[in-house]
Amino acid sequence: MSRNPTLEPHSTDVEHAAPTKSRKWLKPRLDWLLVFVPVAIVLRFVPSLENPTALFIVSCLAIIPLAGWMGRATEHLAEHLGQGVGGLLNATFGNAAELIIALFALSRGLTGVVKASITGSIIGNILLVLGLSFLSGGLKYSKQQFNRTAASISATALTLAAIALVIPTIFHQAAAQVPVGLGGWTAAKEQALSLPIAIVLILTYALLLIFTLVTHRELFGGLESKGIAKEAGAELTRMEAEEGAHAPWSIGKALGVLLIATAFVALVSEFLVGAIEQARETLGLTEVFVGVIVVAIVGNAAEHSSAILMAIRNKMDISIGIAIGSSLQIALFVAPLLLFASYLFGRPMDLEFTIPEVIAVAASIIIVEQISADGESNWVEGVQLLSVYAILAILFYFLPDVHAAATEIGGAGNVPAHQ
Amino acid sequence: MSRNPTLEPHSTDVEHAAPTKSRKWLKPRLDWLLVFVPVAIVLRFVPSLENPTALFIVSCLAIIPLAGWMGRATEHLAEHLGQGVGGLLNATFGNAAELIIALFALSRGLTGVVKASITGSIIGNILLVLGLSFLSGGLKYSKQQFNRTAASISATALTLAAIALVIPTIFHQAAAQVPVGLGGWTAAKEQALSLPIAIVLILTYALLLIFTLVTHRELFGGLESKGIAKEAGAELTRMEAEEGAHAPWSIGKALGVLLIATAFVALVSEFLVGAIEQARETLGLTEVFVGVIVVAIVGNAAEHSSAILMAIRNKMDISIGIAIGSSLQIALFVAPLLLFASYLFGRPMDLEFTIPEVIAVAASIIIVEQISADGESNWVEGVQLLSVYAILAILFYFLPDVHAAATEIGGAGNVPAHQ
Amino acid sequence: MSRNPTLEPHSTDVEHAAPTKSRKWLKPRLDWLLVFVPVAIVLRFVPSLENPTALFIVSCLAIIPLAGWMGRATEHLAEHLGQGVGGLLNATFGNAAELIIALFALSRGLTGVVKASITGSIIGNILLVLGLSFLSGGLKYSKQQFNRTAASISATALTLAAIALVIPTIFHQAAAQVPVGLGGWTAAKEQALSLPIAIVLILTYALLLIFTLVTHRELFGGLESKGIAKEAGAELTRMEAEEGAHAPWSIGKALGVLLIATAFVALVSEFLVGAIEQARETLGLTEVFVGVIVVAIVGNAAEHSSAILMAIRNKMDISIGIAIGSSLQIALFVAPLLLFASYLFGRPMDLEFTIPEVIAVAASIIIVEQISADGESNWVEGVQLLSVYAILAILFYFLPDVHAAATEIGGAGNVPAHQ
Repeated sequence: MSRNPTLEPHSTDVEHAAPTKSRKWLKPRLDWLLVFVPVAIVLRFVPSLENPTALFIVSCLAIIPLAGWMGRATEHLAEHLGQGVGGLLNATFGNAAELIIALFALSRGLTGVVKASITGSIIGNILLVLGLSFLSGGLKYSKQQFNRTAASISATALTLAAIALVIPTIFHQAAAQVPVGLGGWTAAKEQALSLPIAIVLILTYALLLIFTLVTHRELFGGLESKGIAKEAGAELTRMEAEEGAHAPWSIGKALGVLLIATAFVALVSEFLVGAIEQARETLGLTEVFVGVIVVAIVGNAAEHSSAILMAIRNKMDISIGIAIGSSLQIALFVAPLLLFASYLFGRPMDLEFTIPEVIAVAASIIIVEQISADGESNWVEGVQLLSVYAILAILFYFLPDVHAAATEIGGAGNVPAHQ
Repeated sequence: MSRNPTLEPHSTDVEHAAPTKSRKWLKPRLDWLLVFVPVAIVLRFVPSLENPTALFIVSCLAIIPLAGWMGRATEHLAEHLGQGVGGLLNATFGNAAELIIALFALSRGLTGVVKASITGSIIGNILLVLGLSFLSGGLKYSKQQFNRTAASISATALTLAAIALVIPTIFHQAAAQVPVGLGGWTAAKEQALSLPIAIVLILTYALLLIFTLVTHRELFGGLESKGIAKEAGAELTRMEAEEGAHAPWSIGKALGVLLIATAFVALVSEFLVGAIEQARETLGLTEVFVGVIVVAIVGNAAEHSSAILMAIRNKMDISIGIAIGSSLQIALFVAPLLLFASYLFGRPMDLEFTIPEVIAVAASIIIVEQISADGESNWVEGVQLLSVYAILAILFYFLPDVHAAATEIGGAGNVPAHQ
Repeated sequence: MSRNPTLEPHSTDVEHAAPTKSRKWLKPRLDWLLVFVPVAIVLRFVPSLENPTALFIVSCLAIIPLAGWMGRATEHLAEHLGQGVGGLLNATFGNAAELIIALFALSRGLTGVVKASITGSIIGNILLVLGLSFLSGGLKYSKQQFNRTAASISATALTLAAIALVIPTIFHQAAAQVPVGLGGWTAAKEQALSLPIAIVLILTYALLLIFTLVTHRELFGGLESKGIAKEAGAELTRMEAEEGAHAPWSIGKALGVLLIATAFVALVSEFLVGAIEQARETLGLTEVFVGVIVVAIVGNAAEHSSAILMAIRNKMDISIGIAIGSSLQIALFVAPLLLFASYLFGRPMDLEFTIPEVIAVAASIIIVEQISADGESNWVEGVQLLSVYAILAILFYFLPDVHAAATEIGGAGNVPAHQ
């Protein structure tokens, strides 16, 4: 995909006036955190320095810039592969860092953390990321506009995802009223129910990609294809272009950076997940709070900064594409993929979330739909999204470990991990 | 109502180009199934052929074309009675086949099946019928448009219906926390609560008809009045007109066909309901799955083919009118009517649905509202509706018989049938 | 804020043609009820006339005109204080009568009534008041239009409020599954969770006021600032202006009337709350029905008549501003304020509502959003809102006293009052 600046419809003077500022603002945020990568390695491998809490915190900080580099490399690679395959690459690897963290958690049987981080990624992207974007954009512009149709299709897909995530919980509640002998709830039935739902979700995602990247491509940004699929790195590329490095990376460089960044993300994710149990006990945090709030913020930090930056530059379609598209990818692609992966690990997971998680996802999706329905945003809409996020964070902070306790009393989730 | 072709706003060339194809496609679907009517009669009355499962399946297939003939006769009769009375006739008899099946089930105390088929008709029409319509229309047209205002008023009425169906369930949950001695839940209280709610629903439906057929008729299609009220057969009439049989039926013919079709629907419904219990045990299906999925598809098959055909011909207002209007009629008219009828049978029913049923209805209505809010449809919106239907069908397939089991533990519904 | 009639955009001839009628219609409704103020005082202080039921009913009737005078005085005072401070005054004192009643109920530990009246005020304003407004306006005008953007921002804020009111209930349900020893539910935790949520709500309200009154003032009516904040009395002032009393009240008169009306509201509220327990037992009504339906209608009667009058005069923005704005103020300002006040009384309250209350609020908000989304209203939309109100009133009529019973079995609310 060649980026001809003269064809770029949004390349206004206002936007080009501030590259220095944005560069200075972004780069430090992401890249100085790379210093925590060697620190994490030292903490992990020097026996005298063993301290799970410190390792957890340092690993969290180290993953943030690494995820950013993964995103950038994916985007550069996508440029070489043409719009179709490139879009697909972005659509499938855009949340690779979260996927890697979740896979490590899954391999250790931490299904509660995995599910909580799915919840957290969904609500974090549409409340925290979008809320901060609307607020920061709205402080600069009285009113910002975006493509209603594209936002609405994504919002509908999110509703579909919310329904899919509600069903296994409803199934448990209803089936638990029937004695097991008469066909009542068992963990195996929950898994049997979850598998076809996951298949429906991933098929829907595939069809949504065909809609976005093939049949209705023009709806999602024409020349730029800034739809739900390929935002994760596009804006970073553009920023770098403005810094003078106009040439896209070579395939070799892109592949190399992707491999190295992925390897480090995997390494540090392993540290993070290994330290999570001890660290959260020391910090007095519950499994669900760590999953929903901490891991989700860490895994999505790159999206956070990109979406906010785009909002400040009044490119709301990209900003919303990143936030909602990321949530969508987690719900329709990453969640089913993790379920399939759980069978490979021999610890079959189900898609049953706790009631607070289900309510949090449903509430987030309902409010984001309302806010995005009119194709306009302003600062108070950002405040409203952030208020909902704050209220949900308060809930998860006070909530005892429902995942863990539920197992004993048949309430919810992660049965395989505790059997 | 005279149909002057020259006044018909949508009679474009595109549409008239394909009558042969549509005729060939529709007629076989509906009418060759009539062969199952005599088969059902033979199976039922020849003792040596007694096989409830076969009788159930054959009766299901036989009702499909009979319901289509009932709808067509109703529509022809409506033409003779003028717009007001004719619209009312369509609005009250449009779902007569489902009503007859439900009445037979009610007379046998199968309230679980009755409620499940109400749920199934609501979700089937707005997810399966509308989903297939959007998908088949969307494969031909990139974007299809419809009247937002009419769709929005129907969608709001559906929300009202969803709220009304949620309340008795919430009442049970809340009242069950109070000991009976202090005013806690009893089946009689549930009935006492359901009766005035049913009256509110049917009054609202009556006022909605006045709005649709009298005060704001122009909103719903002007000359054609293709609103929520009279879609069930209008398109069939038009198709027949295109086949050469331009003259509407005489009153005598319409009445005769209506009486004969209704008699056969009643007969075959009696077979179907009589065989339902044994058949579903043989097939390993639960009461709720049979009610929500099987009976609902059978009872609505005529609407299915009509709505899809209209979507393929880009007449989205009629297509949506059939799908949403049918759901609305079930929720606001058929459900209260069945409740009133249950008092005549001496087996008072309530309006309490199980939690999975309530969630299914609410989820369907939420997603259909989102999709219809912008007045446009495309193929991926059809996919999204069908995905939600698939997910709900998976839920009802795996769900143990909550209605039956609930009675024992005070969870839900059909108390009269089991006392 | 000077009201220059020549600048007033809506001062059409149609409107000025009917002052006599509106005056005759309004004044009797509100002011002849003042006769019940002395009656209430006599009933309360003459020992031989002691009759709690009569006192309750008379107090209810007496508060209605007093609340109207408070609103009028607040508005006149606001005129002198300029738009910013005046708007703030309206935004904070618009529901002062309800606040006073609730404070008296709180001081007696009637947290169940307080919460029920919060619920009732929210649903009463958006269903009953708005429903009657749409219906009476719609009987005169085929279609009425209003500012979609302003209505949508208010509706989103209501959704935020609904989420905030759902969370404490969800917390209880989820935390109750964990034994107290492992961090399970306690009343103290519920309070600890509710306090920061209340702070988030009141901060959001403050920011919403800044948006409405400062940064985006023009969205909410330009010259007139008829936004969510200051409707409670503006229309009454205008009506009086039309009656000939064009001059606004002096500061002294406004302050004097405000003080006297407030004193009487406080006095009669004390009667009302003191008689509530015995009266409702005599009348056979539950705590929750009295709170949700009776107290809410009494406390909001002034808004009722104003909003309906504005709708009849086709000033839908004011009508909707009163109805939705009032609900918003209760949810985002009065509810947190009552929670803070409960700490001063030494009986800390939480924000946990019963499930029927939560469902009622959520259902009301969902339907009002749908109806207001298109910026148009008609009579059938009014009917739909009133139908939902009727259905909810039926629920609360049949519901046993969940608040009271819940305490014993750990189900919900008002723990401090019963310990």
